[in-house]
Amino acid sequence: MEPKVKLWIEKAGLLVLSDYRAQLLQHVADTGSLAQAAERMGLSYRRAWGKIKEAERNLGVRLVQSEVGGVGGGRTRLTPTGERLLAQYRRFRTAVEVDVGREFGDAFGEER
Amino acid sequence: MEPKVKLWIEKAGLLVLSDYRAQLLQHVADTGSLAQAAERMGLSYRRAWGKIKEAERNLGVRLVQSEVGGVGGGRTRLTPTGERLLAQYRRFRTAVEVDVGREFGDAFGEER
Repeated sequence: MEPKVKLWIEKAGLLVLSDYRAQLLQHVADTGSLAQAAERMGLSYRRAWGKIKEAERNLGVRLVQSEVGGVGGGRTRLTPTGERLLAQYRRFRTAVEVDVGREFGDAFGEER
Repeated sequence: MEPKVKLWIEKAGLLVLSDYRAQLLQHVADTGSLAQAAERMGLSYRRAWGKIKEAERNLGVRLVQSEVGGVGGGRTRLTPTGERLLAQYRRFRTAVEVDVGREFGDAFGEER
């Protein structure tokens, strides 16, 4: 048997961060491009943008910022707040995964 | 912000226990009746039975046993294995909820 966990964070009952959205933000951070981030997620640009805008609206903060123009066109990157929330979410997620494995072993140890 | 967690347990990639199924088993234990347990879950008898049979099949153990006849008709109760797994799942679930709250505070403490 193995434990499975799905995590997310709500604010006022609305989704603000989840594994899926954290992954999308991570791709933005890694690529500097919402188009590339969307492609890595198998999402349309419009849909990826909508997910980020929804999270921003529900949180009340900006998570990404776009720079227009320059050589090669604009870039999108995380705001300082976006970077901090992503780092916090990843820390939270990793810690909970460790906890879940330990608690599962404690509760079901004799089953394995 | 508040953390949300969904937990379940798989065996060989198949669902064996979840909060929902644990709740159904708890109602069987509490009422001694699959019909009443199904009603408390808002499920048809057939659907509740199917969920338990599926969990038993995926686990390879019996979780409930029915006694036919007697005054007032048959009863359904958990097998000793079913009781043990339910108790283990509840312990696991409770422990993880405590962990998730703590990890969330540790990771996002300054947000609250």
